[in-house]
Amino acid sequence: MKRIGMLTSGGDCQALNAAMRGVVKCLSCSGEAVEIYGFLEGYKGLIYGDFRMLTGADFSGILTKGGTILGSSRTPFKLMREPDENGLDKVEAMKQNYYKLKLDCLVILGGNGTHKTANMLREEGLNVVTLPKTIDNDLWGTDMTFGFQSAVDIATDCIDCIHTTAASHGRIFIVEVMGHKVGWLTLNAGMAGGADIILIPEIPYDIDKIVEAIEGRAKRGSKFTIMAVAEGAISKADAKLSKKEYKEKMKNYQYPSVSYEIADEIQKKTGLDVRVTVPGHTQRGGSPCPYDRVFATRLGAEAGKMILNGEYGFMVGYKNREIVKVPLEEVAGKLKMVSPDATIVQEAKLTGISFGD
Amino acid sequence: MKRIGMLTSGGDCQALNAAMRGVVKCLSCSGEAVEIYGFLEGYKGLIYGDFRMLTGADFSGILTKGGTILGSSRTPFKLMREPDENGLDKVEAMKQNYYKLKLDCLVILGGNGTHKTANMLREEGLNVVTLPKTIDNDLWGTDMTFGFQSAVDIATDCIDCIHTTAASHGRIFIVEVMGHKVGWLTLNAGMAGGADIILIPEIPYDIDKIVEAIEGRAKRGSKFTIMAVAEGAISKADAKLSKKEYKEKMKNYQYPSVSYEIADEIQKKTGLDVRVTVPGHTQRGGSPCPYDRVFATRLGAEAGKMILNGEYGFMVGYKNREIVKVPLEEVAGKLKMVSPDATIVQEAKLTGISFGD
Amino acid sequence: MKRIGMLTSGGDCQALNAAMRGVVKCLSCSGEAVEIYGFLEGYKGLIYGDFRMLTGADFSGILTKGGTILGSSRTPFKLMREPDENGLDKVEAMKQNYYKLKLDCLVILGGNGTHKTANMLREEGLNVVTLPKTIDNDLWGTDMTFGFQSAVDIATDCIDCIHTTAASHGRIFIVEVMGHKVGWLTLNAGMAGGADIILIPEIPYDIDKIVEAIEGRAKRGSKFTIMAVAEGAISKADAKLSKKEYKEKMKNYQYPSVSYEIADEIQKKTGLDVRVTVPGHTQRGGSPCPYDRVFATRLGAEAGKMILNGEYGFMVGYKNREIVKVPLEEVAGKLKMVSPDATIVQEAKLTGISFGD
Amino acid sequence: MKRIGMLTSGGDCQALNAAMRGVVKCLSCSGEAVEIYGFLEGYKGLIYGDFRMLTGADFSGILTKGGTILGSSRTPFKLMREPDENGLDKVEAMKQNYYKLKLDCLVILGGNGTHKTANMLREEGLNVVTLPKTIDNDLWGTDMTFGFQSAVDIATDCIDCIHTTAASHGRIFIVEVMGHKVGWLTLNAGMAGGADIILIPEIPYDIDKIVEAIEGRAKRGSKFTIMAVAEGAISKADAKLSKKEYKEKMKNYQYPSVSYEIADEIQKKTGLDVRVTVPGHTQRGGSPCPYDRVFATRLGAEAGKMILNGEYGFMVGYKNREIVKVPLEEVAGKLKMVSPDATIVQEAKLTGISFGD
Repeated sequence: MKRIGMLTSGGDCQALNAAMRGVVKCLSCSGEAVEIYGFLEGYKGLIYGDFRMLTGADFSGILTKGGTILGSSRTPFKLMREPDENGLDKVEAMKQNYYKLKLDCLVILGGNGTHKTANMLREEGLNVVTLPKTIDNDLWGTDMTFGFQSAVDIATDCIDCIHTTAASHGRIFIVEVMGHKVGWLTLNAGMAGGADIILIPEIPYDIDKIVEAIEGRAKRGSKFTIMAVAEGAISKADAKLSKKEYKEKMKNYQYPSVSYEIADEIQKKTGLDVRVTVPGHTQRGGSPCPYDRVFATRLGAEAGKMILNGEYGFMVGYKNREIVKVPLEEVAGKLKMVSPDATIVQEAKLTGISFGD
Repeated sequence: MKRIGMLTSGGDCQALNAAMRGVVKCLSCSGEAVEIYGFLEGYKGLIYGDFRMLTGADFSGILTKGGTILGSSRTPFKLMREPDENGLDKVEAMKQNYYKLKLDCLVILGGNGTHKTANMLREEGLNVVTLPKTIDNDLWGTDMTFGFQSAVDIATDCIDCIHTTAASHGRIFIVEVMGHKVGWLTLNAGMAGGADIILIPEIPYDIDKIVEAIEGRAKRGSKFTIMAVAEGAISKADAKLSKKEYKEKMKNYQYPSVSYEIADEIQKKTGLDVRVTVPGHTQRGGSPCPYDRVFATRLGAEAGKMILNGEYGFMVGYKNREIVKVPLEEVAGKLKMVSPDATIVQEAKLTGISFGD
Repeated sequence: MKRIGMLTSGGDCQALNAAMRGVVKCLSCSGEAVEIYGFLEGYKGLIYGDFRMLTGADFSGILTKGGTILGSSRTPFKLMREPDENGLDKVEAMKQNYYKLKLDCLVILGGNGTHKTANMLREEGLNVVTLPKTIDNDLWGTDMTFGFQSAVDIATDCIDCIHTTAASHGRIFIVEVMGHKVGWLTLNAGMAGGADIILIPEIPYDIDKIVEAIEGRAKRGSKFTIMAVAEGAISKADAKLSKKEYKEKMKNYQYPSVSYEIADEIQKKTGLDVRVTVPGHTQRGGSPCPYDRVFATRLGAEAGKMILNGEYGFMVGYKNREIVKVPLEEVAGKLKMVSPDATIVQEAKLTGISFGD
Repeated sequence: MKRIGMLTSGGDCQALNAAMRGVVKCLSCSGEAVEIYGFLEGYKGLIYGDFRMLTGADFSGILTKGGTILGSSRTPFKLMREPDENGLDKVEAMKQNYYKLKLDCLVILGGNGTHKTANMLREEGLNVVTLPKTIDNDLWGTDMTFGFQSAVDIATDCIDCIHTTAASHGRIFIVEVMGHKVGWLTLNAGMAGGADIILIPEIPYDIDKIVEAIEGRAKRGSKFTIMAVAEGAISKADAKLSKKEYKEKMKNYQYPSVSYEIADEIQKKTGLDVRVTVPGHTQRGGSPCPYDRVFATRLGAEAGKMILNGEYGFMVGYKNREIVKVPLEEVAGKLKMVSPDATIVQEAKLTGISFGD
């Protein structure tokens, strides 16, 4: 008999349900008796003992369903170590609930912040298996995270729609793509959508190079320009600031996001009409794409197998097209960024895409 | 032999190409010799004599293509009557180009502003046939405009995506839907997306009623609320202001659109986390939906038939599921709004949707 | 207090769940106490007393879900009057269950066959309200049925996919579209997909006219031809046969459907490579399109209102863009077909589409 | 100055245009003068000297376009070595056209058959660079081929649609998936669509195991079963036949494809209602998915780079997430199949999917 706790933490994304279904299908098919405790709204459920007993039926038909049937919430890692407003020691509370329910292990689905906490729980002696969830694809130790390809699809759809309107009106259009502090999502959606300029955090931009690219296009007869701009895009000048200085600068910022500032600068320098579209949270919603469904199912199945084998302390990752076990201490606190020298970046440049550098 | 000028004016939308293809296919199949002059970038092309001769091949394969192969531009009706920066009389210039090219008629595709100018050209003695293009569906004299259903589809997709993330996080989400000063697009996308609250310009809202609806949902166990808010949504208080007063108020407005203001007010009154998503121009882009392709093709075919019959001065409209000829003077300058008493509004209310009134 | 029985009968389609949700939302919001008895698998559930009590929660989140949460089955009308294999009188059994459960009315969702039985139950004295469900759009008394537009979307997607491959290989492609004995679905999907030839049951075809159309295209430089063929398409010769003779002929038929026979004939007469694609049941599956969701919700709301008002014996239909009540006796047993003279057919022909007539 | 011949051969698929655009964008951006000779309809164009000069404009806007702007055709490798009906030596003709046009190299996009011929041309002394195109993903030397993921998406959509109708009617549904003699497409679409049973050529099936799986599901309360069956699926008995014996057996086959035979056997053994859906050629049509657009663009860019460097005789492949050069002699004539022991197969089995073995 295995008693498994399960939770989804951080921003939701596509294929969370598919991954949990994979775990539970694997456990159910193993012949071993299993009890699933689903903690609600991420770590909150584990802290306050808020859970539902789940059966196979709860996981039936959710392969294609976006979001998470367990709900999710964000709690910054720093705050995890601090007592709550009633003085409750959160880490201690999680441990107590774990032991009280006599759990064999926790299955935790989440991104970077979630993995820091998961690793802490491992250090505290709990059995933990994690699954790499994030549309940002910025988790260390895995080539791919689920949610990413689905988000690429949505962001690309958005660029496709903008393409026809940009072409019809001869305008410059910025599509602001999610991705937190990394450029994977913008790079892929930008290339898939045929963007002419792609700005990502890892390659700080020079506004004059952007203007040059736009004017170069105009000279070659292209009346419009599509820009895919990461929400974390940063100028060369700003990239030189300290974290604190940059934060200070941001405070005095008059626009809701960097894309508007870039649009403003281009408009001033070129006199051209620049529009901004921000698909925002739509990028993390909706039904997972087939790629993510297969991928999340595979990861879930392997997590189930690890649990049956009693292998704990790992994130189930993906390396060179094979599923791998990655020690949690190697994952926690690290960021997988786009290297400015990555072949995909070079290939994008070979096809004439400007990164504004 | 017929010599036809054609232009697309105003914001682009889906199925412009499909409609033009319908006109040209009809003319080409009629056996009569035809010359098509495609004026570029809307009325601009007609004013400055900027056109391309088009053949059947130009219209092949464009049924599914978004945007407009002729390009478009917006010129407010007021400015039409004013000379350009070089002193050129625009109306006179359009007439001269029309006569110089010995055109039999102009086929003009556009929305409200476009129809005012088209009617003026008719009054000036030109032969004009128009087609009702707008995602706003606000053109007088026709039950439906092409672009509308495609935009409903995109806005609904957006709400669908937001639904999974709102449900997972227990948040309030506002999706701001286009539609200019009318609520058709928001009403339909809101109902299709399962929005709990729908705000449209025709039914001014009371923020306290909105808060009531949200809190009512919470009491009945719903942790999240989806709001579809028209870009033209207006509060009861603001609706009482004169146009001038409202414009003045808008100037001092700190947010890029009304949705952010509404979000802010809800957050203050409820303490809940409210997020805003603005799909923006994506709503007018991309491939037309099958409904719009059929509809635009039908309108185009009937326009072609009218041209062959020498029937000018009409918009080709749609009434009670039949194609009809609507005199341009009846269309120009009028707005088709959602009646607050419309059955569709009543039906929405019957299913528990709040309009904040 | 209202006690409502509900069932879905016949082939499933999109927006059945949306329609039921509309009914139940309307009843729940009315303030009146309501009990919903969901009979499983169509009339079968009513005959054998197989039902589930449903609450508002059962209808939450199903707006976008394809299929029917109640299950469905087909029972030909003729068999309804015959006793089952255990000698049970089915009609009597349905009446007994209705009275035993003290139902105020039955809400029945279905197509043509379903409406015959619904009308019979009305004649037997039961209170019945029906909703027009079918991808075929062949129900008398309503301009539109839900499921239809969703099916058009899927069939059109299919033609779009075939278009690129047909163009690349210079082939003739037949896409066989559903629609039972009427051509609405094929006509609309064919026009939306840019089909060159459309064959529908209401306009029997002449194979030589089809060959003529294909060869005409080749002469004008088009290397490929797309045909949208209704599953009920029929040749002029076969259309002259009696029903019995036609059935007899079909028995000796070597192909699974008429499209293959047509393909074979074209191949023999032209020597060209002809391929057939049959999307089949995919056309009735998947998430309903936004149009159908709004439409089904509206119909459901009006059905709810009628129940609250005690108005029974009607199908909730749609005429000239308004929801109407249509007496069941007017609906049952009639078929709404495409008139060969309908304006939409004329418009299709104006744009050069051949109907093989 | 570089003179490049380009052709697409074999069955068309998604992202052929995207890949060619990648090559040409790379060459155009390199600064070197380039002439592009586009041979029409595959090797046919090269044999008969049928080509169009292509400029950058021809490749603009085709990133999202399905099919191939050059057209394609299939010519079995064996026939390549035989003279045509006029006695023309095809291989010699290709060489002569190559030299007459003073080409620096040929860029050839295709699958298995195409690569055999490409390798032969290399052996004959021509400079060749190839790109791996096929929805089957069966090319040796590369982890991935473009077209594959787009086909997975379409086949999965199809299974999704069937899912709702199967569940509503409690039926067994077979979706026949393409893939030629390998199971990649069926395996991935099956897992993504939540199929209960997946049959692929690499794992011959036993009809009794399939019946067992269906009846096991029924016992556990599942009224329906979804089967994803590869067009090349084969029974254990048939797998033991020699190629010749199997061909002979197929000739006497009464159904258009293996799925119908399997359906028939299940129906006989279980008495259940089994339906077959064959999406067919739709799987290779339509707009490429974002994954394929990025992937094809990357491959195209690297092909362009290789041409600029004068590196010939390679297929541009993908191994462990990096673009690699694979000698043509290693690719030609080999098939990349699914290993029955592959981890993805094991993972599918862990989640309860039956392969009928």
